[in-house]
Amino acid sequence: MAVRVGVIGGGQLARMMIAPAVELGLEISVLAEAEGMSAQLAATRVGDYRDLETVRAFANEVDVITFDHEHVPQEVLRALVADGIAVHPGPDALQFAQDKLAMRARLAELGIPQPDWARAAEPSQLQEFLDEHGGRAVVKTPRGGYDGKGVRVVSDAADAADWFARLEPGDALLVEELVPFVRELAQQVARRPSGQAVVYPVVETVQRDGVCAEVIAPAPGGNEKLEEVAARIGLQIADGLGVTGMLAVELFETDDERILVNELAMRPHNSGHWSQDGAVTSQFEQHLRAVADLPLGDPSPRSSWTVMVNILGGPSDADLMGRVPAALAAAPSAKVHTYGKDPRPGRKVGHVNIVGDDLDDIVYEARSAASRFD
Amino acid sequence: MAVRVGVIGGGQLARMMIAPAVELGLEISVLAEAEGMSAQLAATRVGDYRDLETVRAFANEVDVITFDHEHVPQEVLRALVADGIAVHPGPDALQFAQDKLAMRARLAELGIPQPDWARAAEPSQLQEFLDEHGGRAVVKTPRGGYDGKGVRVVSDAADAADWFARLEPGDALLVEELVPFVRELAQQVARRPSGQAVVYPVVETVQRDGVCAEVIAPAPGGNEKLEEVAARIGLQIADGLGVTGMLAVELFETDDERILVNELAMRPHNSGHWSQDGAVTSQFEQHLRAVADLPLGDPSPRSSWTVMVNILGGPSDADLMGRVPAALAAAPSAKVHTYGKDPRPGRKVGHVNIVGDDLDDIVYEARSAASRFD
Repeated sequence: MAVRVGVIGGGQLARMMIAPAVELGLEISVLAEAEGMSAQLAATRVGDYRDLETVRAFANEVDVITFDHEHVPQEVLRALVADGIAVHPGPDALQFAQDKLAMRARLAELGIPQPDWARAAEPSQLQEFLDEHGGRAVVKTPRGGYDGKGVRVVSDAADAADWFARLEPGDALLVEELVPFVRELAQQVARRPSGQAVVYPVVETVQRDGVCAEVIAPAPGGNEKLEEVAARIGLQIADGLGVTGMLAVELFETDDERILVNELAMRPHNSGHWSQDGAVTSQFEQHLRAVADLPLGDPSPRSSWTVMVNILGGPSDADLMGRVPAALAAAPSAKVHTYGKDPRPGRKVGHVNIVGDDLDDIVYEARSAASRFD
Repeated sequence: MAVRVGVIGGGQLARMMIAPAVELGLEISVLAEAEGMSAQLAATRVGDYRDLETVRAFANEVDVITFDHEHVPQEVLRALVADGIAVHPGPDALQFAQDKLAMRARLAELGIPQPDWARAAEPSQLQEFLDEHGGRAVVKTPRGGYDGKGVRVVSDAADAADWFARLEPGDALLVEELVPFVRELAQQVARRPSGQAVVYPVVETVQRDGVCAEVIAPAPGGNEKLEEVAARIGLQIADGLGVTGMLAVELFETDDERILVNELAMRPHNSGHWSQDGAVTSQFEQHLRAVADLPLGDPSPRSSWTVMVNILGGPSDADLMGRVPAALAAAPSAKVHTYGKDPRPGRKVGHVNIVGDDLDDIVYEARSAASRFD
């Protein structure tokens, strides 16, 4: 019988699991937040992922539960596990993706290199961290942030006064050193429940306004040491946190050649979209293989270079699909991926991948194709 | 707005259009012959494709109609066109894929190289052809044959007596010269309604018992002349017959280096499945782009070689999906495609693609992975 994979969340990551699920012969179904979401084609239920009975009813129709996002509450996840349902990644791992303070503490225990950080339950603790770190730091809300939201650079404790005011008793903000990085990288790792793990090439990510804009795979100017360090960090985290499925580790490369962990995601991630067309096994296929506990596929690149350019916001006339012909005509080798989402300023509505041997050429072509959506 | 593509027929070809439709942002829906078919995920209606009102109701919900097979009757197709519905390929082209006698006559008009052939309305005409061609020939029923069905090698007119007995008045059998071929090839071409066409590399196909067993892309030992001749034949047929969408031309290569047209298919075809993993633009994505009149994609191979091995029949215990883990473990670079069909002797239930630089290695790996389904 075909393995039935249930995905909680109907966004573009769930949508992009549909294609490899169909090819592998897995039965995919989606619990979507609303009608008409990106993963509509596979949506069998619509409901609130925070409601245990809604999630439980969905889970009872599948063999394994996985996720489009990390927001399903711990109590819901733990109730599913208690029901005997296979949940990948499980709550023990997901807690570290849900709470950045817990993640920093666990990475410290594992000895993983990361920025200096502290728990700031009140403004004086933030001010103390600022005083010790040259007067500037990054403050993050430990939960619910994404794409630059819940992240703020501050030079005075007063800059985070509103966040402190909203803290629940016992909660705190995360403060991090402002890392003098030269560029950002990302490391993808896949890990099965049985422990088998594979490592993708480390990639360079280019952010604009806190949102991923472009990815180049593998990271240019890479060398064996960089690849080894990034791969070791990825594997240590996947093992140490018990991640099952895809893990994305966002990294800073500093001017003194240190590699520090920025953020984690326990699911397919924007920094791995290049693999859909540029790797033998895409991160979406790999995630499905991992959560279904199937043997993992070859993560090798298919060619010298792959460039991914996000389509951010979409055209001002809101007719995303009307621009597809011009984008396809601009670059016959471009793979245009759209998410079935309405254009809106800054929103990720699609991306373009191009694979090739000449990096300058494909960067130009990918940007050119993506610009047809401006 | 997203272009809505409606596919008539719920088999594996419709199934394999789902992945690229999702990625491109096309809305795909399928009119399936029954519940639970290969393309179930996108099936919005179940009904008889020979019934005009069933097909018309489906067609009214989409922007363009295309096909999983060539069996929709001409009168149904022509009624859709009269309704103003975009049908690709259209009935004028499809008639030549539906009737092999009409195809032979049209290719003769176009001057395309093909085996000697004749129309045999009665046994004496078949006998006459046999007498002129060394006493052996291939007899075909002009309609409804596939995968070796409706094809018979005869050495006496009596060998086709049952087929002659069943002929309707005015109908005839097709008789063809038994071509002394050294191997079989296939040429894929995509053509848009606006006329743009692209040509895939010519591939070698290996048949067993009249069914495609393996494909090697590009055809080994190929040379520029072979590629040019095959490409020219493909383009001439696509233009001459007004094909829109994918065209597959099955070819014989003779011992005196002639290339002769064997059969045609106006849809994605088994001989093009390699392109899912081995070409920049797969035949399924290309078919969708062509029928939606979008700019065509790059048909170039991604690597030196791609091998496709069909999974025929499936395991004797009928548990196809139970064999997937062993197949994936056997070859981490294998792309295993299953069709959601029940195993049955001789039935095409999936295929394996492997892409690489060493042909011997990937042939071995692809066969090894596919053999896990025996």
